[in-house]
Amino acid sequence: MNAWLDDIKWDEDGLVPAIAQETGTGKILMMAWMNRESLELSVKEGRAIYWSRSRNKLWRKGEESGHVQTIKDIRLDCDNDVLLLEVEQIGGIACHTGRHNCFYKQLQNEQWVEVESVIKDPNEIYK
Amino acid sequence: MNAWLDDIKWDEDGLVPAIAQETGTGKILMMAWMNRESLELSVKEGRAIYWSRSRNKLWRKGEESGHVQTIKDIRLDCDNDVLLLEVEQIGGIACHTGRHNCFYKQLQNEQWVEVESVIKDPNEIYK
Repeated sequence: MNAWLDDIKWDEDGLVPAIAQETGTGKILMMAWMNRESLELSVKEGRAIYWSRSRNKLWRKGEESGHVQTIKDIRLDCDNDVLLLEVEQIGGIACHTGRHNCFYKQLQNEQWVEVESVIKDPNEIYK
Repeated sequence: MNAWLDDIKWDEDGLVPAIAQETGTGKILMMAWMNRESLELSVKEGRAIYWSRSRNKLWRKGEESGHVQTIKDIRLDCDNDVLLLEVEQIGGIACHTGRHNCFYKQLQNEQWVEVESVIKDPNEIYK
């Protein structure tokens, strides 16, 4: 049982990167990390649950903000060490900065320039 | 100089994950790793150059296969520790298995099922 979890090549910290891609738009929302427990729970609950490396605990995406990610599809790569989630992003905001996604800094002439606008003030999201 | 490289939060091994997304289709082709040198060279040469953790050396994507990735855009995430590349995939094959992309295993009823076909036999790609 749980052979599908054993198939994954967890790193030395028991983690793998998980890329969240928005269903429909195909935009990349964010990349976070999952451990065995968080992936198992994600599948069980149908929503993205990551492992927070900074807080060292399970991170039910949207637990504070309401910006839950509903899982539509889960893929594993050829090397069995990266996950790709197709998700519906509730609220249309994935980033804690209040932007649609986390990849809002674009390299322009050797500088990182913010090219996506804040949809909602983080102070309004995390009260 | 090279402040844009200093802005990046390299991990303890001097690496960050780099997600390659195909221009036009928005499909995720692969995820690999970059170090400072590989990113600098990628920008300079306009093509994806990764750091191979298994071979412990620079990996000019396509150097053997011809399946070069031409870079259209580079993004950095909110935490400064993940890169997103928008690339044109020369040859339409990113995966060493001969598939369009590396995320061809889909989770179905607690099993990983291969859902994307091989475009070209790897023996024909790597001679």
